Amino acid sequence: MQGPPPLPPESWPLTPFHRMPDSSLTAAFLGPHGENADLLERLVTEALRDHVFWRRNYHPEDGFTIRETDKRTEGYERAVATLTQELMGLLAELKRGVPFFSGRYKGHMSYEQTIASQIGYFAAMLYNPNNVASEASPVTTRLELEVAAQLARMLGYDPARSWGHLTSGGTVANFEALWIARNVIYLPVAAAGAAEQLGVALEVRRPGGARGRVDRLSLWELVNNSPDAVLDLWEALWTVAPHADVHRALSAHSLSTVGYQDYARRLARAYGDPLPAGVVLVAATAHYSWEKIVRALGIGSNQLVFVPVDTHFRMDPDALWDTVAKLSARRVPIISCISVCGTTEESAVDRLDAVLAVRERAERELDVTFHLHADACYGGYAAAVTRRADGTRRTAAEIRASMETASWPDDAWVRALEALAEADSVTIDPHKLGYVPYPAGAILLRDRRARELVAIDPPYLVPARGVGADEDRFLGRFIFEGSKPGASAAAVWLSHTVLPLDERGYGRLIERTMVGARRLHAALGTADFGAFRIVLLPEPDINIVCYILHHPALSTLGAVNAFNEGIYERLSLSRPGASPPYIITRTRFQTPMYDGAVEPLLQRLGVGDVATWRASGADGLVVLRSTVMDPFLMAPPPPPAPDHVSGFIAALRHTCEDTLPSVVP
Amino acid sequence: MQGPPPLPPESWPLTPFHRMPDSSLTAAFLGPHGENADLLERLVTEALRDHVFWRRNYHPEDGFTIRETDKRTEGYERAVATLTQELMGLLAELKRGVPFFSGRYKGHMSYEQTIASQIGYFAAMLYNPNNVASEASPVTTRLELEVAAQLARMLGYDPARSWGHLTSGGTVANFEALWIARNVIYLPVAAAGAAEQLGVALEVRRPGGARGRVDRLSLWELVNNSPDAVLDLWEALWTVAPHADVHRALSAHSLSTVGYQDYARRLARAYGDPLPAGVVLVAATAHYSWEKIVRALGIGSNQLVFVPVDTHFRMDPDALWDTVAKLSARRVPIISCISVCGTTEESAVDRLDAVLAVRERAERELDVTFHLHADACYGGYAAAVTRRADGTRRTAAEIRASMETASWPDDAWVRALEALAEADSVTIDPHKLGYVPYPAGAILLRDRRARELVAIDPPYLVPARGVGADEDRFLGRFIFEGSKPGASAAAVWLSHTVLPLDERGYGRLIERTMVGARRLHAALGTADFGAFRIVLLPEPDINIVCYILHHPALSTLGAVNAFNEGIYERLSLSRPGASPPYIITRTRFQTPMYDGAVEPLLQRLGVGDVATWRASGADGLVVLRSTVMDPFLMAPPPPPAPDHVSGFIAALRHTCEDTLPSVVP
Repeated sequence: MQGPPPLPPESWPLTPFHRMPDSSLTAAFLGPHGENADLLERLVTEALRDHVFWRRNYHPEDGFTIRETDKRTEGYERAVATLTQELMGLLAELKRGVPFFSGRYKGHMSYEQTIASQIGYFAAMLYNPNNVASEASPVTTRLELEVAAQLARMLGYDPARSWGHLTSGGTVANFEALWIARNVIYLPVAAAGAAEQLGVALEVRRPGGARGRVDRLSLWELVNNSPDAVLDLWEALWTVAPHADVHRALSAHSLSTVGYQDYARRLARAYGDPLPAGVVLVAATAHYSWEKIVRALGIGSNQLVFVPVDTHFRMDPDALWDTVAKLSARRVPIISCISVCGTTEESAVDRLDAVLAVRERAERELDVTFHLHADACYGGYAAAVTRRADGTRRTAAEIRASMETASWPDDAWVRALEALAEADSVTIDPHKLGYVPYPAGAILLRDRRARELVAIDPPYLVPARGVGADEDRFLGRFIFEGSKPGASAAAVWLSHTVLPLDERGYGRLIERTMVGARRLHAALGTADFGAFRIVLLPEPDINIVCYILHHPALSTLGAVNAFNEGIYERLSLSRPGASPPYIITRTRFQTPMYDGAVEPLLQRLGVGDVATWRASGADGLVVLRSTVMDPFLMAPPPPPAPDHVSGFIAALRHTCEDTLPSVVP
Repeated sequence: MQGPPPLPPESWPLTPFHRMPDSSLTAAFLGPHGENADLLERLVTEALRDHVFWRRNYHPEDGFTIRETDKRTEGYERAVATLTQELMGLLAELKRGVPFFSGRYKGHMSYEQTIASQIGYFAAMLYNPNNVASEASPVTTRLELEVAAQLARMLGYDPARSWGHLTSGGTVANFEALWIARNVIYLPVAAAGAAEQLGVALEVRRPGGARGRVDRLSLWELVNNSPDAVLDLWEALWTVAPHADVHRALSAHSLSTVGYQDYARRLARAYGDPLPAGVVLVAATAHYSWEKIVRALGIGSNQLVFVPVDTHFRMDPDALWDTVAKLSARRVPIISCISVCGTTEESAVDRLDAVLAVRERAERELDVTFHLHADACYGGYAAAVTRRADGTRRTAAEIRASMETASWPDDAWVRALEALAEADSVTIDPHKLGYVPYPAGAILLRDRRARELVAIDPPYLVPARGVGADEDRFLGRFIFEGSKPGASAAAVWLSHTVLPLDERGYGRLIERTMVGARRLHAALGTADFGAFRIVLLPEPDINIVCYILHHPALSTLGAVNAFNEGIYERLSLSRPGASPPYIITRTRFQTPMYDGAVEPLLQRLGVGDVATWRASGADGLVVLRSTVMDPFLMAPPPPPAPDHVSGFIAALRHTCEDTLPSVVP
């Protein structure tokens, strides 16, 4: 193996991270070599003993259920021996795990967790709180709602008006968002039925601003009202008749109650034309879980409409406008449009401000609107980069200055993140760029009233449930899941507390990964790969670097794919017993989702155009990926530690040489 | 406060638990007063150091990223100070938590976790594995599948034919089960469409045993085939044409793809009468999450048909037969019947063998069948009671002998648990009677082929995904969720390993809670409550004791409810600053779900009949509940520790006296 090619001089600012003004991030993680082991051990022991002595102080007069003499029995000793032995076995097994913590891991969006979240999780887990209801989690339910309010503030939501909670992950959070969106969009139809049943007149604010009586609107008009207007209508409905009557009337006409099968028949009966099935628009790069979600909700994957992306993998606003206009011409209701903030493959950030502008134009020109959801599961925490300590926004120029980059981020990037404040719902995974243990997803609603549309009891019933019952004390009422770990809330809470969601904490952390990713991208672009050539995807919006390796002997797309697949295999743990010097991952861009993005790549690879590529079908285009979640990659470490940018480039070149013969014998 | 009433002599076998032949359970938990703190601390430290030295041995030549000199910087020291201070604050907050670990907690199904699961969780969490795919969790994905196979064996499923995985909890597991059920029940409709499109003939085995050509069956016949027959049909379909063609044809006709709205229209077009909307049968006592589930799936809560329960809160098989016969007469398709093993309120175990007999009769007499799901989220682990160490079944008499009870469990209870092996799917929550940390639900499928009906890629595509790819390596393909904690799998695995799922481990543990619950039930029944009277619900099927307190001055249902609500408030943490001597919980039996069960209770309370009760509407009947998950309640502890059965009874009587004046001034 040849030595690493030297990094081009002056190509990157070389302020070592540990000489940065604030070296607090060196205390944030256990560290690649467990450098902070003392700290973590001290805190873990503290939390454990603290818990034990809480137990011992709870009714000390109860004495000891398990006595020292019990511990001298054969049964006890055998049980301890078994437990210790099996734990040793488990610990040995775990060593086959993935070294996410190392600078040598440059694969998926996996790193290690903050010490704060590890200790928060462990400390709370000992108490076994269940956040389904505060009766089983008086402390951690409160922490969960605090965490949601912190995230809401970071996004720019009004904490008094918004609401949110944690979920097991992004799939459940996104599922819940779309479930709510469906209930919002179809609510005016139910309200029209309820108004008729109750013999009352009700109005809704139409996209143009005029007010329309729900009994006089067409079905098409009923399903085209802004979420704000719908929730105002929902609130007005509860004032026109006794609560129990409203509940009965609304239930009798709600999709949730009636179910899709009868609903479709009723619409046909009541309105003649029941309209085509409602669709969900997603950026073509959206996560595969959206397909599960629309299938499970009964919407059907045929109704998942992919909006083409541009060559930066961002939803193309012009394509979105075309899609909306075409659907509108066919009178196809749009349940929701899903914009992505941080695609899982490329970390692309949709220009959400431009997406919002398309919705405004649709309201103005077409009298059409829809629910807008931001899937910020991966990228949501990047909004912390845009926040000053006092909560105001940083400018792009300020961020560039602290990142020591001349051109990144641009104003458009900042505007896109600021626009999250206007989305009707946002999902964001603390267990991704929040660096906390699984499971921790989150959903935030801009308008807290929306949660009532999926609640299991009508709101008027709740105060009767128990003396002093506060509506937020039973989360299970508003959320899809039931029993859930309070420990997760404590983990996120403690991590947010020591690393605030602004430039001092998460903003700084994520900024550094963005610098690291751009340093890697720049170095890959200028490195000497000998006979090999690298085709880089554009600089990432956040911190995922994608690339394809190439060689003149590879003349077909199939050969290029096989070559890159071979590199992946050699730089991954997919082969049993493998110990690669670096670990990367790969994805496969497929048609039609990536049709709008692959053209420049295919051109640079010289393996045909989009048409040839489409014809190749499921094979797609293999793309190698390196997620930079490691805040320490932004600058070379102090010698003699190797630099994992130049080291990786050397390993990649070596792997290319190693792989080529197996593809081109 | 008066002293505790003496326990009636001879009313209970008094072998102290720590003198039982096998005292290993004393090593299973941290203990009410943290008696096993040394053990847990030793293992936690071991796991942490073991992990740290794994990191240090991974490429030691990389040196140290965080250096000792960094730790001497102001930034580092400030960060550590903040973290330590905030952790102290969190630890102080957590002390307002619920003392689930104490014998004084007799409320929800919450206790402490096994030491094995705590240490398993912590040890694996340090590695941050994500069980969405084995690429991010080579060890813990395997452990998850092992855990599922262990549960499958306990239920009596064939491990080679069945399949399962962990979920975030019971709601997601039940949701997934019903999602799969819907895909199974409607598959023949899609197959008929696909067969026509492909120009092939396909047969399905009809309930009576005859084979029917799918293109000649009516819609009613297509939706009435056993899950086994449907999965055989599904498998046969893949043999009649090239895989890509089958995939295209099947997708074109599947509900998942088409979505409910278009599906209903197509059925009407293709078959004339599209049949009424498909329903889901549930025991009337089923958990409230089933309502969320049918709403979210688009089935609609109108289609949730409650099957009455008997006075033991078990689904009434005669009522089930009547329901099936009536639905069948109206040609209403039954998507699934949900039987409950361990209701969350009463721990009632449906006579699943009798439910299965009803399905067989429906197949024989009505040519009607359905998917059968067992919601064993709470009670599933009780199946461990029925297993010998060698895997064979224990008889009821054997179990009675080891429980030292004369009459419990009866043969019917054992048969009901044995019948789980015949359910098409079973959900079971390790984070309930598995005594492991949240989140840990599980779903088991009797026939692993069913998972393909919700998989995101057609099966033939998968082998092409990567060299050596094993289909089980990407769990995300078959399951609803995505990223999920590998730590949870390690926790369940280690706990199952030290406490096997048979009479030696979980069987013994749960048996003891059943003994404790019956001891509590017996003592409540014979205790002297002075002027007060207790109305006990029947002895529980597992370990939840329910009761209502009464006094002659309480003449209406409303007064009895207010009195019991008052007792609950005094014996709970619902009031700020409360420090009750014991903690219980309560539920509210509501109409129509409990119509079949409340008659004897209302009679004994002397507050009217079912008709009066129904008229009272949402108020229902307040019932106090004590879940006995504490294995140490089965016998009084060695003196001087107080017995938490007699102590609880004394506190309950005192609370009655304290509460009455506030209800009857």
